[in-house]
Parts: sequence; structure tokens; C-alpha cells
Amino acid sequence: MAGGSAGKITVLHGPNLDRLGTREPEIYGTETLESVNREIRALAESLGYTIEIRQTNQQGEMIEHLRWADGDSVGIILNAGAWTHTSLALREAVRGLRVPAIEVHLSNVYAREPFRRTSVIEDLVAGKILGFGKESYLLAVRAIDSLHRRKTRRP
Amino acid sequence: MAGGSAGKITVLHGPNLDRLGTREPEIYGTETLESVNREIRALAESLGYTIEIRQTNQQGEMIEHLRWADGDSVGIILNAGAWTHTSLALREAVRGLRVPAIEVHLSNVYAREPFRRTSVIEDLVAGKILGFGKESYLLAVRAIDSLHRRKTRRP
Amino acid sequence: MAGGSAGKITVLHGPNLDRLGTREPEIYGTETLESVNREIRALAESLGYTIEIRQTNQQGEMIEHLRWADGDSVGIILNAGAWTHTSLALREAVRGLRVPAIEVHLSNVYAREPFRRTSVIEDLVAGKILGFGKESYLLAVRAIDSLHRRKTRRP
Amino acid sequence: MAGGSAGKITVLHGPNLDRLGTREPEIYGTETLESVNREIRALAESLGYTIEIRQTNQQGEMIEHLRWADGDSVGIILNAGAWTHTSLALREAVRGLRVPAIEVHLSNVYAREPFRRTSVIEDLVAGKILGFGKESYLLAVRAIDSLHRRKTRRP
Amino acid sequence: MAGGSAGKITVLHGPNLDRLGTREPEIYGTETLESVNREIRALAESLGYTIEIRQTNQQGEMIEHLRWADGDSVGIILNAGAWTHTSLALREAVRGLRVPAIEVHLSNVYAREPFRRTSVIEDLVAGKILGFGKESYLLAVRAIDSLHRRKTRRP
Amino acid sequence: MAGGSAGKITVLHGPNLDRLGTREPEIYGTETLESVNREIRALAESLGYTIEIRQTNQQGEMIEHLRWADGDSVGIILNAGAWTHTSLALREAVRGLRVPAIEVHLSNVYAREPFRRTSVIEDLVAGKILGFGKESYLLAVRAIDSLHRRKTRRP
Amino acid sequence: MAGGSAGKITVLHGPNLDRLGTREPEIYGTETLESVNREIRALAESLGYTIEIRQTNQQGEMIEHLRWADGDSVGIILNAGAWTHTSLALREAVRGLRVPAIEVHLSNVYAREPFRRTSVIEDLVAGKILGFGKESYLLAVRAIDSLHRRKTRRP
Amino acid sequence: MAGGSAGKITVLHGPNLDRLGTREPEIYGTETLESVNREIRALAESLGYTIEIRQTNQQGEMIEHLRWADGDSVGIILNAGAWTHTSLALREAVRGLRVPAIEVHLSNVYAREPFRRTSVIEDLVAGKILGFGKESYLLAVRAIDSLHRRKTRRP
Amino acid sequence: MAGGSAGKITVLHGPNLDRLGTREPEIYGTETLESVNREIRALAESLGYTIEIRQTNQQGEMIEHLRWADGDSVGIILNAGAWTHTSLALREAVRGLRVPAIEVHLSNVYAREPFRRTSVIEDLVAGKILGFGKESYLLAVRAIDSLHRRKTRRP
Amino acid sequence: MAGGSAGKITVLHGPNLDRLGTREPEIYGTETLESVNREIRALAESLGYTIEIRQTNQQGEMIEHLRWADGDSVGIILNAGAWTHTSLALREAVRGLRVPAIEVHLSNVYAREPFRRTSVIEDLVAGKILGFGKESYLLAVRAIDSLHRRKTRRP
Amino acid sequence: MAGGSAGKITVLHGPNLDRLGTREPEIYGTETLESVNREIRALAESLGYTIEIRQTNQQGEMIEHLRWADGDSVGIILNAGAWTHTSLALREAVRGLRVPAIEVHLSNVYAREPFRRTSVIEDLVAGKILGFGKESYLLAVRAIDSLHRRKTRRP
Amino acid sequence: MAGGSAGKITVLHGPNLDRLGTREPEIYGTETLESVNREIRALAESLGYTIEIRQTNQQGEMIEHLRWADGDSVGIILNAGAWTHTSLALREAVRGLRVPAIEVHLSNVYAREPFRRTSVIEDLVAGKILGFGKESYLLAVRAIDSLHRRKTRRP
Repeated sequence: MAGGSAGKITVLHGPNLDRLGTREPEIYGTETLESVNREIRALAESLGYTIEIRQTNQQGEMIEHLRWADGDSVGIILNAGAWTHTSLALREAVRGLRVPAIEVHLSNVYAREPFRRTSVIEDLVAGKILGFGKESYLLAVRAIDSLHRRKTRRP
Repeated sequence: MAGGSAGKITVLHGPNLDRLGTREPEIYGTETLESVNREIRALAESLGYTIEIRQTNQQGEMIEHLRWADGDSVGIILNAGAWTHTSLALREAVRGLRVPAIEVHLSNVYAREPFRRTSVIEDLVAGKILGFGKESYLLAVRAIDSLHRRKTRRP
Repeated sequence: MAGGSAGKITVLHGPNLDRLGTREPEIYGTETLESVNREIRALAESLGYTIEIRQTNQQGEMIEHLRWADGDSVGIILNAGAWTHTSLALREAVRGLRVPAIEVHLSNVYAREPFRRTSVIEDLVAGKILGFGKESYLLAVRAIDSLHRRKTRRP
Repeated sequence: MAGGSAGKITVLHGPNLDRLGTREPEIYGTETLESVNREIRALAESLGYTIEIRQTNQQGEMIEHLRWADGDSVGIILNAGAWTHTSLALREAVRGLRVPAIEVHLSNVYAREPFRRTSVIEDLVAGKILGFGKESYLLAVRAIDSLHRRKTRRP
Repeated sequence: MAGGSAGKITVLHGPNLDRLGTREPEIYGTETLESVNREIRALAESLGYTIEIRQTNQQGEMIEHLRWADGDSVGIILNAGAWTHTSLALREAVRGLRVPAIEVHLSNVYAREPFRRTSVIEDLVAGKILGFGKESYLLAVRAIDSLHRRKTRRP
Repeated sequence: MAGGSAGKITVLHGPNLDRLGTREPEIYGTETLESVNREIRALAESLGYTIEIRQTNQQGEMIEHLRWADGDSVGIILNAGAWTHTSLALREAVRGLRVPAIEVHLSNVYAREPFRRTSVIEDLVAGKILGFGKESYLLAVRAIDSLHRRKTRRP
Repeated sequence: MAGGSAGKITVLHGPNLDRLGTREPEIYGTETLESVNREIRALAESLGYTIEIRQTNQQGEMIEHLRWADGDSVGIILNAGAWTHTSLALREAVRGLRVPAIEVHLSNVYAREPFRRTSVIEDLVAGKILGFGKESYLLAVRAIDSLHRRKTRRP
Repeated sequence: MAGGSAGKITVLHGPNLDRLGTREPEIYGTETLESVNREIRALAESLGYTIEIRQTNQQGEMIEHLRWADGDSVGIILNAGAWTHTSLALREAVRGLRVPAIEVHLSNVYAREPFRRTSVIEDLVAGKILGFGKESYLLAVRAIDSLHRRKTRRP
Repeated sequence: MAGGSAGKITVLHGPNLDRLGTREPEIYGTETLESVNREIRALAESLGYTIEIRQTNQQGEMIEHLRWADGDSVGIILNAGAWTHTSLALREAVRGLRVPAIEVHLSNVYAREPFRRTSVIEDLVAGKILGFGKESYLLAVRAIDSLHRRKTRRP
Repeated sequence: MAGGSAGKITVLHGPNLDRLGTREPEIYGTETLESVNREIRALAESLGYTIEIRQTNQQGEMIEHLRWADGDSVGIILNAGAWTHTSLALREAVRGLRVPAIEVHLSNVYAREPFRRTSVIEDLVAGKILGFGKESYLLAVRAIDSLHRRKTRRP
Repeated sequence: MAGGSAGKITVLHGPNLDRLGTREPEIYGTETLESVNREIRALAESLGYTIEIRQTNQQGEMIEHLRWADGDSVGIILNAGAWTHTSLALREAVRGLRVPAIEVHLSNVYAREPFRRTSVIEDLVAGKILGFGKESYLLAVRAIDSLHRRKTRRP
Repeated sequence: MAGGSAGKITVLHGPNLDRLGTREPEIYGTETLESVNREIRALAESLGYTIEIRQTNQQGEMIEHLRWADGDSVGIILNAGAWTHTSLALREAVRGLRVPAIEVHLSNVYAREPFRRTSVIEDLVAGKILGFGKESYLLAVRAIDSLHRRKTRRP
């Protein structure tokens, strides 16, 4: 990847994720979102990508972030938090994407309340990674790298 | 980890996976199980692990493989195929495990028939990775490496 | 209707409709929202109405648009997009309206995913028109005209 | 449309609609079916179409009317009454149509009993118009006109 | 059975089957009902049976055909079309039969819409044959022949 | 009621009831419909009513019988047979009645198949009598007599 | 019936029926239970029966009344009120009866709340009469008379 | 508590509550939100508390109000309006609270539409008060006072 | 309230509440019913009411207590315990009340087993208060006081 | 256990069990409750226990028997009859017990009506024995003996 | 087809079918599997086919038989017994087949327990034949012959 | 029974039971299967029976064990583990048994996950014993002894 970025990866964090580190640490750990973001950035850059990371509690904002990311990224990593389970407006926004999105969760959502078993976007994303804490994001970075290499036929 | 293995990773493939490469290539691709296994092995060894890989069409055998793996592995990668959706006997076997298991699927099971949306083991595993083809297994190897490092506090 | 407007018609477009023309053209066509709006305006004015048209991705905004429209319009044409199917807050806002609202959809929502079969506002609107593309809006303009004439007993 | 009809529009009224004007006037109004038909005919002819209107309480008859209409009309306006909600034989007949059909209801069926929320033909028709009384039929005439113009590329 | 018929077989075709050959040929093929009937008749006669074949779009007629057939046939082959899935009146008529009836479908109804998975007569018939196109009827003729031989102990 | 009839009672029998006496005698007994009708007539006349009794296997016919009866009877006794459980078109016809209707069944429908537990007209009739064989009709005659006396304030 | 009773009829009223005449008169009327009982008694005696009538708000008491009635009555008329819908203990008591029981309701329970559509005893009784106010009981007396005559072959 | 506040109580009103007094007065009364707030404030201050009251139609805003209130209040009174029934993002925000929240509704939500029977936060709050109009809020102020006294062991 | 009682408040405790203080103290606390009753009485009297408090394990008794209370109280506080969730007989008794009843629970029933989420009386009471331990009763006393003042227009 | 009882075992029989021997002998046999009780007593005494046996048709009574038994018995054998399937008040009483209870049924409840498949106490008892007629009780006596020995560490 | 086989037909019998003739003879008859196989073989050979017949109680074995049959047969006749209703692993194996499979049952599964109404393979097979005892297999042989002739265009 | 065995009892343990003592000891205890088997054997022999005990993780094997046991045992004790809840093939095997089978579970399956509440064999066995640990098996031995004595009329 000499002399240039392999492209941009966009990471979108949904509602309440700005409280990471203080909200329910027994489930989500004590690391802050900022610290997690640093690790995501480090890995992405080590693989030759630039990265853009956004958090929002406004659903309309996430819908617009998705649209912008669709124009200038090679892949999107999406942790839509509680919106994952019911937001059809978000679903509509994901459905129109031309670049692959990956659904990510910090915790194993299947080992928690039943409502977390439903995702309204899961049939529209390329794949899903969950249960590994911040590592879920890092694996998603690698997954996008893999998808991108396959498409651009880079080794 | 100078002068020795970081431990063993066990990979278990369930029913019909021996037909990989010929069965429904539009979903599962044309690469054979053997070829996928080679890549899993290569990555695991590059990270310092030994690896054991099994495929079986006999549910009882998988139950016993799980038990054996529990005794001598640092983590288990489990693609239980169609058993994932209904086999409570398999669930019982997974529930008693002391080492972390990761549920893996080649395809995005959520974008296919409704029965694939049910997994009877998903609340018992450490995490779940799906939709990336053979890359799903490779990411799972990295996930086990990450879980193992955290536990043994290796950087 | 000599020498004055028959009243104002308000048209409200919900989330993702600003992407009309680029999002899934095989379903929604290639015409932009702007172009559709032009036709709505032309028909409304030819029938003697003034018109106000709004699009928003913010649910709170639509709730407020509804309230304002209730005060100064003779009827409301509402395409609430994905909010149609689940937003009870929107339902609350529609329930209190004093002027008739008409639910409109570009596509035949009944020929698509099952979740589109649910509308949380359909029992509160005057009527429903769907499946005719931009023509759905135009028919809705005529429907409001008809309701308004009946009420004001104009021929 | 100088020098000839733009084509024929067929209107089919289902069971109990011959009682219009006497049956539950608080829901269906006091106008008779004959009077409604006159307005439909007037509008259709003003748009350049000939029109054929049938009412029947015999399901088999409606099935045959549909078949005949399919052969010689440019569009079908269908108010199947209570058959809308359960008749799969009617559904079969609608499914095979080559010209567009439009589902029409006098009242807002979604504001009434739950069984009216089900339509076994709604995914097969071009579109659906409901809640505007006799105006529902008139809007449907315009909708067919619009569909027909688009197809024959008349302005 | 020298010098005489082994008995009469009655074949009843339900609604929309008179459109065979033109309705959805990708599912039902291009052969007409008349042509299918000719083959049924040929096989039945070659096995020593006389045959009566009826098609109707009137449910009441089918109920009466069933009653008449019950009096003078050795078996009934019944393709009730869409009535199969919901008509309890038909069920009542089938329940009282003294001769065996066989439920037949041209297409594999289980590979199509979910509503086709329900048959309100399937627990009342002797057996069920489906998915083989016109061959379904021919196999049913043989099945009745087999049932009849067993009963009359002919080899 | 000196010198004249107290009014007309209409009795409507639905599909398959013409087979009474031969169809499933273990449930419905061996008496024919004609014989049952004679007893109904005798009781009605002894109470001062004229009577009209109809049986039909054509749903459209029953809908029209209902309408006619509504015009010239003091009450309607309705055994709609299998149509009771699913026919919404019949429901529509019953809903518009101005004279009371009574739902009647020969057998105890609640002690039989589950589908018989549903009646789509039961919330629209004055009352329901079932389980007493032909006596169910006779009790219904008395019930109409009672309703009629109460209305006309005859002792 | 010269010189003796045709037998005893037992009438059991369940919970809240002692409030008849004051509780929700718009549904149950203004006549008291005592007054209704008088009419039941008069009819029964005119037909040659003795009668025993009980009301209780204690479920255990009704269970015991049923048992006693089973020993010395020719039939039981049972209005179990709200217990009808859920009491399995009552069901058990009804199931063991050797004489016929008739389920009776004052109002048309099917035209009211959904929970009233369930009866846990309806498959165990001889028949069911409902919707005619106090007349429901009177018809039930006649029904028992009819059942009893049939059994004892009295004209 | 001499010479100082017992602490702050936060009151959060959700969507459409700013229309109080004009929206559906037959359900919500004619008093405005401002007037209700005055009474809440008066009671809270009379009990020694300071009070902060917010209304918003933006869900993200309410999520952030909850977080701020968690830091500086002794209790939260929450009327989330229509969001109560479906918003999982709100649920997530409530789940992480360290101070008690009380769910409040003006009307008896259980006597209205079925969707109001579901609350996605009700298992996370300390208690629930509903049906008393503005008094619901006043009782909630007392409830927080009681919870706070118990915790700080004031009489 | 000089010179007389404002009226009587009746408090009814249902089954198992006599075990308060010993049954599951981790949920219900260690205070006895007697002690709770003392506080209720004290508050009611301080507000100028007389009070009557009853506990019963016999459902029939509670039904009768309700009727008596209806005659001589200004309001009823009802903790029906486990009967709340299924007893339709109790529902019937509550439905006929002329004075307001308030449903009260000690614990937050929504944070416990699913069956506690159903109340068969909740749509019939004036309001509902739950989750505050004995304080739930005290708030209910205040709620009745508020309802009573509003009705009698006392300040 | 020289010179004294090992403790008391309490056996509680629910509604309708006093009819044992006459009620549905094809299911419950012809032996009376008295005779069954004699065998239970004999076995219990032979194992060194005293025994108390109660039958009641009053649910409140059973709730109180449970409470008393909890104070002075080493275990409770409970056949709650039809109350097993729905009585939440009974469930509440069982939940607070400190000594083990065993759920017992004479017949195999799973081979009968579906409602018998539900037990509202089965998750609260120590174990469940059913299907062996009176032997079910005798096995339960042995089960309590076993539980008691384990606890008191007697051989 | 001169001088050679038309191809091989494979017949697979699932679990418990080896008990044919002794297991529930009132349903399955007294003929053994061996005897049924002889007739299948005779018919197949008379039509010019070779035949291979397997029975197994091991699901893994059936999966492998399917795969082998797919390679060397012109069609597969499959009676998967109880696996039909739930085995998704079997479904996976059937889905990949390149030659047509026919689902066969000895008895009319729709006239038995409800669980038999579900088949997890029925949408994947060419057709389904059931209810004719051993004749079901013989008809299936003819069906495969018909499918094969059509494909190879033999008369 | 002088000088010989009363017959053979067969005990079948299903999947994962070979892990007893190590798998989830907090639920299943620390005793091994071998030790449990010793106690079963001792009790059976003390009652005069010979015993055969099998454990298998292969469902096909259990089906065959059942068949063999049916031929040479007086009763079967069956702990089918997780197969209990879903295996219809096992159900088929149990259904054909001529000797009584008893369903046994170590733990109280009703106090655990919901899926354990379903047993596909419970309506086919003689009875069910569960919740008493190894004692469940011992009670089952006594139950078979009791059934066998009753049948052979030994005291």
C-alpha cells in the first residue's frame, strides 16, 4: 500500500455508547469509548486505512452519517446499540448502502434480555461480530480489510 | 511464548461441511474444506498455537469431540451447521465447557431462511462471528488469541 | 375560487425520502424528491391551493410540523416512511389533529417485507393511497380537495 | 383523445354492495350504488375511457368477470368487499391478471374491525385507495388513467 | 372384470383450473385442461374404469358433484384449488363420503406461499399426491385402482 | 293475536344440511331435514306465526335470503353450517339486519373440532342455541316468540 | 304426569348473580334474581317438575351443589358466571356428571369482552343457550324437559 | 435538613406533552403543562426539595437529561409518553441510573389501546403511578420524598 | 374537616397478605400487616377519613367486601394479591362499583415473574400505584383524598 | 430414631378428590380416598413418620393448610387437582414454604387434555411424581423420607 | 432403452421402519419392510430401472446415502420417518441434491398427530405421495419414471 | 417368585449422562454415573429383579436399546436427557413399546430453562418422576415393581 491509504473505514457508535466505562461496567468494562477508539484507529492505520469515528444519540444523525460514509469509505462498522433491535428508519438507511457494513456488539447480546435477539439490520449487513468487548471492533476492522482485499484483489 | 506453543485451538465442523466447494457454491463458494483448514492452520501456527480440526456428520461424535477439546485446548471454534438451530444435546455439551467456544458461520445466516435465526448455543458461547466465508474462521482464531492473551496477561 | 386560495395543503415527507432518485431506484424510481415536489405543487395550485412541503429525518421535527400544519392547513399528506410502521410518538401527534390527514406511500408496501404491513397511524387518517409512485401524492391532493369541497360545500 | 376511446376500464363491486345506501348508512352513506356508478362513468368518459361496471354476490361470477376484464380492459377497479379478507380463490384469479388492478374500499377499513386489516390480494394489485367514500373509486379511475398514460407514453 | 367396467372414477377440478395453459405457465405449464383430461381418461380406461370429469368455479356445485360421485363412483380425485386451503363447507362435504377421495395438486404447494401449506381436507382423504404436474392425476388414477383392487380383492 | 298471524319467522339452513339423516347419523341423527322442518312449522303455527324455511348450498343465495327475510319477518333462525366459522360475506349480511337473528346448531359444536369454536356472526345475533338436535330449532322459535312479545308488549 | 313429579331440575347461579337488577342494568336488566327464579319455578312446575335453585359466590359450594344435584335431578341448568371462563376445578366437577347439564348466560357473551368467548365447560354440557336474558333459563327448562322426555320416551 | 434543600428532584416530560390542555382534553383535561408544573414545583418546595422540569420531543435529549439528572438529583419522575411503549434506547438510559426513577402517566393507560399496556422501562423503575391526572406527578413527588427519607433515615 | 368525617376509605388485602413480615422478607420486608395497617389508619384519620381494613384468603369474601364497601365508602384501596392476575369473578365485582377503586401492590410487579404483568382489573380502576412497599398504600390514601376533593370541590 | 417419630409428613388433597372411586373410575380407579389414605399412612408409619392428611374443596383452606404444615412437618405431599393448572394464589403459598413439597398426580396428566400440561407450582416443588395411581403418593412418601435422611444425615 | 438399464432409483427408509409389520400394525399393516422392498424392486425392474434400497436408524448415515445416491441415481425416494418433521441437517443434505427426490409416507400423516403436519424437506422435493401404504412407494417409482422420461424425452 | 428373578428391568441413560459428577455439579451433584448405577442395581436386586443399564450418546443406539428391552424386560426406566425435549424418532420408538416405560430426570426440569418443559414422550410413558437426583431412578425401580406386581397379582 506504498504511498497512499487503502481507503477510509467509518465506525459509527449509537446511543448511550458515550457512557462506556461508567455504564454497567460489569457488562461493558471500565474502558472509555475514547480509549477503545484509539485502539481501533491504531489497528486500522497499521493496516493502511484512514478512519473516521462518530458517536451520536440522535437517530437522524446516524442515518446521515451512514449516507456520507457510503460515499467515501470502503466499509462501515456499525454498533447501533439499542436502535439495532427496532429502528426501521435505520434499516432503510442501511439497505441502500453500496459499501459493506458490519454489525458489531461489545457484549454477547444473545446471553442477555430476549429483545436483544432481534436485529432489524442483520440481514442487510455483510456479517456480524459480537461478544468480544472492544476486540469485536478490531475483528471488524480486519473483516473489512479482508473484504476490501478480496474486491481489489490485493494479497 | 519463546520455545513452546501458546496452547491448542480446536476447530469443529458439523454436518454437510465435508461437501464444501460442491454444495451450493453460490452460497458457500468453491473452496474445499481442506483448503479452508489449511488457512486456519497457517494463521493459528503463525500466532503460536497448535491446532486440531475435526469434521463429523455424527452428532454423538461432535459431543465427544467437545468434551475432549475442553480438556486440552485454550479455545474451541464451532461451526455446528444445521445442528446449531435445534440440537439441545449439543447445547448440553457446550454448556459444560470450561474453555471459551466461538460460534462461527460461513454465510450470513440472518439473510437466509428464518429457521437459521435460531441458535440453541448462542447464549453459551463467548461470541459469534458470521458472514465472512472462510474469513469467519480466521477472525475466530484471532478472537481466541485475544481471549487467551487477556487471560494469561500476555501483551 | 376567484380572488383567493382555497386554503393550504401541507405535505410531509419522512426519513430517507431525501435520497429519492438514488436509493433503490428499482423500487422508488429515478426521479428526485425535488421533481416530485414540483408536480405536487403544480397540481395543488391548479386546484386553487397553496402548498407547503417539508422533509425531515428528525422524528421530533415531524411531530412539530404536524402540529403547525394542523393550525393553518385544510389537509395534510403524510408519507412517514419507516416511522409509519412503529412510531407511537408520531401516532400520538396524528391522533390529535383536527384537519384530515392522508397516509401515502410511493410503493405498494403490501408487496414487500412483512413489517411494512403494519401502520400505526392508519386507523387515524382519513384514507390511504399507495403503490402509484409520485402519482400517490397527486391523488392525495385530489382527495383533500374532495374532502375540503364536501366540507365547504363547494361544487 | 380525439377519434376513439383510450380503452375500457372495468369496475367490479363485490358482495352486499348492492345494498349501498340502505346498509349501515352511518358508515357507507346514503347514496345508492347506481348513483355512485353514474359518477364513476362520468369521470371515466371525461378522461376518454369506456367503462363496464358489475356487481355480484356470487364469487364464481367475480372470478369470471376478472378473466373477461383481463382480456379487454386497460385496468380493473376492484372492491371485493368481504371477500377481500379471506378468499384465496379470488386471489388466484387476481394473480393471473395481465392488466393492473386497483384495490378500492369505501370506508377506512383500518379504522374498523381487525379482520378488515387483512387483504389476500393487496400484494398482487398495483395500488390501493381507501377511506374516501365514492371518491375512492374516482381516484382509482385517475390512477388507472395515469398508469395507462405512462405505459402508452401519452402526456 | 371381464366384459364390463371396474367402476367409475370421478375427477373434480376446482376454481381457476379452466384457465390451465394460460394462467402462470411457468408454474402450471402450457398444456390445457382439456389435454390433461384426455390423458386421465386414457389411463383410466386402459385400467378398465369409466371416468367422469368436472370443473367448476362454483363451490356449491362442487359440493353437489361430491355427493353425486359418492353414490356412483369407486373413488374421487379432487383438486379443489384454492378452496383446499380454507373452505370448511367443502370439508363437510368430503367428510361424509363413503368412497375414498384423493387430494391432488399440480404444483408442489409446499414450495410456494405459506397459505398453501394448509389443507382443510387432508385429514379426511385417503391420500395425497402433489408436485408432478398432470402426472399427479395419473398417479391418483393408479392409486384408486390399487385401493379398489385391494377392496375387491382383484389381483 | 285474534284473526291474524303474529308475523313471519324465517328459518335458513346452510350447506350440506339437505343431507340430514344420511350424513354422519351418529352426530346428526337419522331424521331428515323435511321431518325437522315439519316440527318447526307446527310449533311456529301453534304460537301464531307463519313460517318460511329455506336451504341452500350457495352462499350468495343465503345472503339474499337474509335480505328478503329482513324485510318481512319478525325474526330469523340461522343455521349457517360450515359458513358460520369463516364467511365474512355472510357476516356482512347479518350485520345489517334490522330484525333479530338467532344462531342455531344441531350438535354441540364446542365438543367437536376446534375450528367449530369460531363463529363470525355470534357477536351480531341476538342469541345462540346449540346442542339439542332438532330441539335447538324449536327453542329458537320460542326465543323469537319471546323477543317479539317483549317488543310488542304482548303477554 | 298424573300423581307425581316428572323429577327435579336444579338451577345453579354463580358469583355476582345475587346482584342482578342492580349490577350494570344496561346489560343485565332491572329484574332481580328472585323475580327471575319465580318465573323459572313457574314454568318448571307447569311442566311437571320440582325445582331447586341455588346461588353462591363460593366456588367450592358450587362444586358440591353439582355433586348433590347429580344424585337427585333429571338435569342441571348452570350459569357459572365468571367461573365459566377459567375455573378448571368447576370443569372437573361438571365432567363427572351423569345427568345432562345446560350452560346458560343472560347476555350474549360473544358480543362483549374477548375473555367471555372462552368456556371451560362448554364441551362437557349437553347444550348452550345464551343472549335472551331470563328467557335463557326458561328455554333451558324446556330443553331439559325435551331431553328427559326423549330418554323416558314420554310424548 | 435545617437551612438547606433536601436535594433536587428532576421531572422529565416526553413527546406531545407540551400540547397538554389542547390535545384530547376529554382524556388529558384542559390544564396546561405550565400549570401542572407549577403545582409540582409548589409541592416539591414545600417538602424541602429544589426541582428541575424539562419537556422534550427529541428522544436523544431525554436520554441526555436522564444522564445529567442522575448526577445531581435524589430522584427522577419520568413520563416518557409514547416512548414508554417501545423505545429501547430510553430503556438503556434508564437502566444505568443510580438514583430511583418513577414511571408516571396522566391517564390510566390500561383502560386505553392495547399498545399502552407495554412499558419497556417498568421493570427498571422503583415504582409506577398512573391514572390520577396531574395528581400522578404529585404522588410521585411524595414517593421520592419517602424513598429519600428512608435512605437518609430522616423521619 | 371540623365537625365530621370526610367519609370512609376501605382497604382490602387479598390472599397471603396475612403472612406479611414472614413471607419472603427480601421482597416484602419484615414489617407485619398489622403495622402497615396502623400507618394507613393514621394517615387516613389525619386527612379526616374513617377507615375500614380487611384481609381475606377467601375470594368470595373479597367479592362481598367490595359490594359492602361500594355502599358506604368514598373510595376503595385494593391489593388483590395473586387474584389480580387471573380472577374474572373479582373483575366482575370491581366492574360494578360506583366509587373509585385503586389497585395497589407492595412490590414492583413488573420487575418479577411474567404472570404478574397481567391484571384483570387494571382497566376498571381509577389508577394504579405500585413498587413503594407500604408507601404504596399511603399514596393511595392520598389519591382517594384527591379524587374525593375534586368531586366534592373541597380545596 | 429410637423411641420417637422421624417427624410429620403432611398430605394435602385438592378439589374433587373426595369423589375418588366414583368419579371417572376408568381414569382414577375404584378405590376410595379413604382406602388410599390408609395405605399412605401405613407406609409413612412403617418408615417412622407420623402423618396428617387433609382434603378440601376450598382454595383458601388449602392455602392455610400449607402454612400450618410448613411449621410442623418435614415435607408436604401435594395433589392440588385442577388448582395445579391455574391457581396463582396457591403458587404464592407454595413459594414461601421452608420444607420441601412434592407435586403428585394419580393419572399421567400429560396423556390427557392440554390444560393439564401446565402446572403453576412445578418450578417451586422439590420434585414431581405422576401416573402411578395411589402408588404416586407412596413413592412421594419415600421421596420425602429420602430428602429428610439426606438432610439429617441418617443412613 | 434397448439392452440396458434406464438408470438407478435409490430408496431410503428412515428410523424405525425396520420394525414394519410389528410396530403399530393397525396403522402400518402387517407386511414387513422386506416384503415391501420386494414389490418396489419388482416394479422398478419391470420399468427398466435398477434399484438400491437402504434403511438406517443413524441420521448421519442417511445424509451420506443421500450424497452417494445423488451421484449415481436418476431419482431418490425418501421416507425419512420422524426425521421428516424436525431434522434440519437432513434438510441441508436434501437441498444440495441434483436429482429429484420424492417424499413418501406409508400412512396419511395429516390424519394423525399435529407434529406430523410439518415437513422440513417438503419444499425441496419434486413432489409428495402419502397415505397409500406400500403403494405410496410404488407410485413414487412411477413418478420418478415419469420425471426421467420427460427429461430424457423418452415416450 | 421362589427361586428365580421377577424379571429384568432396563435402565437407559441418554446423551451427556456419562459426564455425571463432573458436568455442572451444582445441578447434578458430584456422584458419578457408575456410582448411581450401583445403587440402582442394588435396589433392583433386593426386590428380586435382574437389571441391565446402558448409556449412549448415539440416538440410533438408544432406539435399538429400546427395541431390545421391549422384548426381554418387565419395564424400562428412561432418562433421555436433552433428546426428551425434541426427538420425534425417539418418540416413535417409545410409542411402539409393549412394556411400561418411566420417564426420569435427575433435576427438577421445570425449575430450569423453558425448553425443558417440553417432553415429546411424556404422553406415552406410564409415569414420570423427577427432581430427586439419583433417588429419581430408585423411585422408578419401585414404580416398575409396583406396576409389575399389579399385573402379575403378586402381593
